[in-house]
Amino acid sequence: MPAGALQPFWGQKTFCVLTGASQGIGRQFAIEFGRKFAKESVLVLIARNSQGLQETKRRVGEANPDIQVICHPTDLAKGNAALFKGIIEDSLSNAKVSPGDFQLAFIVHNAGSLGDVGPSVAELNDAEQWSEFLALNITSTSILNSEFLKVFPKGSVPYRTVVNVTSLCAVQPFCSMGQYCVSKAAREMFFKVLAEEDQSLDVLSYSPGPVDTDMTITIINKTRDAKTRDAFVDMKEKKTIVTCEQTTLKAIQVLSNKQYKSGQRVDYFDEGY
Amino acid sequence: MPAGALQPFWGQKTFCVLTGASQGIGRQFAIEFGRKFAKESVLVLIARNSQGLQETKRRVGEANPDIQVICHPTDLAKGNAALFKGIIEDSLSNAKVSPGDFQLAFIVHNAGSLGDVGPSVAELNDAEQWSEFLALNITSTSILNSEFLKVFPKGSVPYRTVVNVTSLCAVQPFCSMGQYCVSKAAREMFFKVLAEEDQSLDVLSYSPGPVDTDMTITIINKTRDAKTRDAFVDMKEKKTIVTCEQTTLKAIQVLSNKQYKSGQRVDYFDEGY
Repeated sequence: MPAGALQPFWGQKTFCVLTGASQGIGRQFAIEFGRKFAKESVLVLIARNSQGLQETKRRVGEANPDIQVICHPTDLAKGNAALFKGIIEDSLSNAKVSPGDFQLAFIVHNAGSLGDVGPSVAELNDAEQWSEFLALNITSTSILNSEFLKVFPKGSVPYRTVVNVTSLCAVQPFCSMGQYCVSKAAREMFFKVLAEEDQSLDVLSYSPGPVDTDMTITIINKTRDAKTRDAFVDMKEKKTIVTCEQTTLKAIQVLSNKQYKSGQRVDYFDEGY
Repeated sequence: MPAGALQPFWGQKTFCVLTGASQGIGRQFAIEFGRKFAKESVLVLIARNSQGLQETKRRVGEANPDIQVICHPTDLAKGNAALFKGIIEDSLSNAKVSPGDFQLAFIVHNAGSLGDVGPSVAELNDAEQWSEFLALNITSTSILNSEFLKVFPKGSVPYRTVVNVTSLCAVQPFCSMGQYCVSKAAREMFFKVLAEEDQSLDVLSYSPGPVDTDMTITIINKTRDAKTRDAFVDMKEKKTIVTCEQTTLKAIQVLSNKQYKSGQRVDYFDEGY
């Protein structure tokens, strides 16, 4: 079945894994994506914060009581193949389902950390901090993605979609946000290669715009770059900053309209998607 | 002194650190860059292979006997701030020089590994392999760069130039070369942020083209992607593959002409540089 054949995107019986689901954009994605899944869909939520995950689960349940929501409190930075394989297989067995029960296998790589936004990149010289940062933002993404696609190989379901949550920082350097820029550039390239290598997959790098989350507050409080700080403060004051609700609606629309080429990035502000 | 004030680039009394200097492009850079340094310049060569480094040193000595060449056999992937600080400080003290003795502080981040070119990115699920790969290609680059710039802060010398050896893989996805693409995209972004943050630096990402080195042979032997393999075999057979000599001459010219904006990438095939 060629990519793009399954229409519409939403309303299918879906097995979805979503990382960074305990707060912010991840929580909103869970609620609004979950609302649109067909009954008997399964939504697997991963994040470190167990309490935050439970609250997300409660709100998904309000939005759509007909799907199963399974929480896996996990520190992705410490993940490996066995752990992620276990999470996906346990989810299937707890939900009493098999991969072949689904029309759509859907993974959303939303988890990510900001890195050290205080110093300039010329000051980043802590090997351990770099190692943890890269483990969370690159390695765990690669391994979870790999284990997900092993459970849902080509042909196992009619349709497979991979979403990478990216940022303007993937394509534009921002002062004092060097680690974040590096991780987002790296991840976007990873998913471009994935799209190139497996053309039966549908791969989207979605850039949610400057969204009003805890991450924004951290940037404002910690950056040493006045321009970066002022830009965020200004957006918050003038309420031009994007809300989690707004960017989630856009993501839903982008996935529904499918005007993007697999592997491509689409930004919140891009028109025609 | 504003960036770009020191002209010409070559022929200055230079303190240069060059990684990946035991073979291939790194060795050729050492010989040809070293040839162009003023007498009493210092060239610090870093790589894992001690024997290879000694051979590079011998050949630099033939090209320019008036400079000091110091070898540091080092596994960059295991590096940290203290190690790299030590390498730079030991080099200064062995050469009996101080940072202020130089007109140009010059670092060339040439070391890099290909990663696992066998599997597709969907198969990359080895946390340890990822960790070592990222430590070498991203973390060690950041830390060495940081320690170099601490020894040569703004104002310590008239001119500071940072070269990142990049690849077409930084901007274009290639099947079965996912890790390499990821590392090169990440590094290019790192150096873009560096250029943005410190405008007194001169930062160049130089992409040497498809060069005839051991890395090329590894790609031909290990890639599972027929298109990638055939492209390299074809270039080798038709001798359209770039030689280390050719790409080094181009790099010398790009640095000399300085037609690039700091932070920019320039490819071997780009005209006007």
